[in-house]
Amino acid sequence: MKVAELISVGTELLLGDILNSNAQYLSKQLASLGIACYYQSTVGDNPDRLQKAIELAASRANLLIFTGGLGPTPDDLTTETIARTFNTPLFEDPAIVADIAAKFAQRSRQMTDNNLKQAMRPEGAEVLPNPVGTAPGIIWSPKPDVVLMTFPGVPTEMKRMWQDTAVPYLRSRQWATEVIASRTLRFWGVSESALAEKVGDLFDSTNPTVAPYANWGEVKLRIAAKAGTEAEAFAVIAPVEEHLRSIGGIDCYGTDEESLASVVGQLLASQGETLSVAESCTGGGLGSLLTAVPGSSGYFLGGVIAYDNRIKQALLGVEAEVLEAHGAVSAAVAQRMAEGVRDRTGSTWGLAITGVAGPGGGTAEKPVGLVYIGIAGPQVSVGLPQRFGDRGREWVRQVSACTALDQLRRRLIVRLG
Amino acid sequence: MKVAELISVGTELLLGDILNSNAQYLSKQLASLGIACYYQSTVGDNPDRLQKAIELAASRANLLIFTGGLGPTPDDLTTETIARTFNTPLFEDPAIVADIAAKFAQRSRQMTDNNLKQAMRPEGAEVLPNPVGTAPGIIWSPKPDVVLMTFPGVPTEMKRMWQDTAVPYLRSRQWATEVIASRTLRFWGVSESALAEKVGDLFDSTNPTVAPYANWGEVKLRIAAKAGTEAEAFAVIAPVEEHLRSIGGIDCYGTDEESLASVVGQLLASQGETLSVAESCTGGGLGSLLTAVPGSSGYFLGGVIAYDNRIKQALLGVEAEVLEAHGAVSAAVAQRMAEGVRDRTGSTWGLAITGVAGPGGGTAEKPVGLVYIGIAGPQVSVGLPQRFGDRGREWVRQVSACTALDQLRRRLIVRLG
Repeated sequence: MKVAELISVGTELLLGDILNSNAQYLSKQLASLGIACYYQSTVGDNPDRLQKAIELAASRANLLIFTGGLGPTPDDLTTETIARTFNTPLFEDPAIVADIAAKFAQRSRQMTDNNLKQAMRPEGAEVLPNPVGTAPGIIWSPKPDVVLMTFPGVPTEMKRMWQDTAVPYLRSRQWATEVIASRTLRFWGVSESALAEKVGDLFDSTNPTVAPYANWGEVKLRIAAKAGTEAEAFAVIAPVEEHLRSIGGIDCYGTDEESLASVVGQLLASQGETLSVAESCTGGGLGSLLTAVPGSSGYFLGGVIAYDNRIKQALLGVEAEVLEAHGAVSAAVAQRMAEGVRDRTGSTWGLAITGVAGPGGGTAEKPVGLVYIGIAGPQVSVGLPQRFGDRGREWVRQVSACTALDQLRRRLIVRLG
Repeated sequence: MKVAELISVGTELLLGDILNSNAQYLSKQLASLGIACYYQSTVGDNPDRLQKAIELAASRANLLIFTGGLGPTPDDLTTETIARTFNTPLFEDPAIVADIAAKFAQRSRQMTDNNLKQAMRPEGAEVLPNPVGTAPGIIWSPKPDVVLMTFPGVPTEMKRMWQDTAVPYLRSRQWATEVIASRTLRFWGVSESALAEKVGDLFDSTNPTVAPYANWGEVKLRIAAKAGTEAEAFAVIAPVEEHLRSIGGIDCYGTDEESLASVVGQLLASQGETLSVAESCTGGGLGSLLTAVPGSSGYFLGGVIAYDNRIKQALLGVEAEVLEAHGAVSAAVAQRMAEGVRDRTGSTWGLAITGVAGPGGGTAEKPVGLVYIGIAGPQVSVGLPQRFGDRGREWVRQVSACTALDQLRRRLIVRLG
């Protein structure tokens, strides 16, 4: 069996300036490929200590995975330290230089001399292409039965390079022999403990395993199975998934990479309906979630960020009397905002949010975390109170936007059902 | 100088099931106490590999900090492996047994036999009390000039034990003699490499150190200084900060926890001016950034999410002819959107974004990543082209919103200056 080791390079990690989410991502990936990982280490931008870490890892692992230290500045030392550790000269790769220059040109910026540093690779090393950033990595076997790969520390770049190049490389060389497949069921509107009570003994299952995760109001159940092929693994998952879905009911809104916004979008698109939004305390966060979905222009028209009451009146037609009688944070105003944005944009559905996100602005009657969701559609027009508690401004805003989507989702499903 | 090393114990870390936030917390803490940390390692619940990690750490560091592996189950092996590594017998500490029993009684639960495992400590080791959980740690000097401390993996327990006992211990023994203070300067509109070329030799400075970080279009320079007190450290930082600001000029938008949105807000508030936004491809992301700032209701009115062209016409008054002649992604439409939202909301400034976020919708003439920013204010009305490249929908949207804020910031400053 092949054994991997992660080496995270960067003084910023040793100083705690950034969280090492790369190590978690790569650990998960290795586990899912059936590649063991016994040690992970973090070392700063210091060539002597980095060299010692490389020597140690090369003595006890077959696959060395480096993140960080590929940037253009003098403290980015990973490539040159690897080359020195294995007594191999570096050379400037003209293809990398051309690629970096093209990327700068695309953004109308000038490439500088220090970017040339990123075009250096040890003799014998292959380029590990970086489609989204300037710093490529390398794949190199500096000695028998040891392969090393380098990635930038920027998570988006590292992940793309891992998926595009590293995973196919490991599979093609039979290093990745097992498959762990997983399916994540996503829930909204149910607590982790309530869901756990319903699911019960399934958490003791060993293949597939079932594990709960909760984050920012969402609960997920991850079903993971090991098998020789992906198809076999999913065959193990299928009956458990079906069982969990039947237990979860309408609280289960989707799977894997689906989001509340994408699920709402599918429901709207299937009926040829459209949506617009009116946002007060979320200030655009609901629209941002909806438009994060590629193709959302097929059903999402837009809306109004009615942060100030003048905008609620001028652009949504909320009557001054309604605002005065109930206050901006009220069921009546949420409902009028939803109706207003629906009518003024000509959408099928209007979805509105008004609430107290905090930290200031709360009162005994209307505390931080009190939010109203307005839904106006073909046969419905309501303002729904929600109490999210004072758990921080960002939490209230995020959970408000998700709950608004979830409330609309439930109405779209019930009506179709 | 004393050198620390972190050893995170747990197979769940190697499998990527949990993120190692403990390492970041302890790294920051050590840095702020002036204790260097050259290596961090993660190892699974395997006694042989853990012993090798301990031996290595004890050969190159003075302070070994362990997290994880103190629980009651058989795979929790940290204490016994440490004892075995230093050939020291374990004994059951009756005081710890009593403490654990009392904690179980308090929660009306029955202590089980496996909890007794948590009462074992090596001869000569002190107890590192855990006021919030059952598993205490130890503080122990198993050999000259080496002290080790163990903490549970649960972050709340680890942090409490660190603050209550470890920090006073390190200060009282003069291990923590220094303070590291830092200031981060934040830049927008300049690449990391371009900024690095301007800053040049400052990266070689040792006290304070200057280090660059880049992420999603933003570049940061972190100035960190060591001194006996925080005030002395900031006195070391001050002239370098001033120098870097003079080099960075207007590209430096703020420090530490400031954001482009908070800085724009301060500039607007200082003039008693207001802002509204009109967003196409960002779909609410710009409004969301602005309203993430507490107190933004003092200058931010709201705006229009004009995702669909009908909304650009109906709610912003963008003329059909302008849309037809130039297309929705154009300088003319960006400018008209900004003017429209300013005029219809009565704000001082209108800020607009229209662009191609991708993945679809790009053409040779208007590729993914082409974005126009509209700014309409007291003496200005413009539509500015930006080319962000095809680096993913989320990237284009995020960088568009930040660039719009930055462009407005520059105009607010130039006008005031």
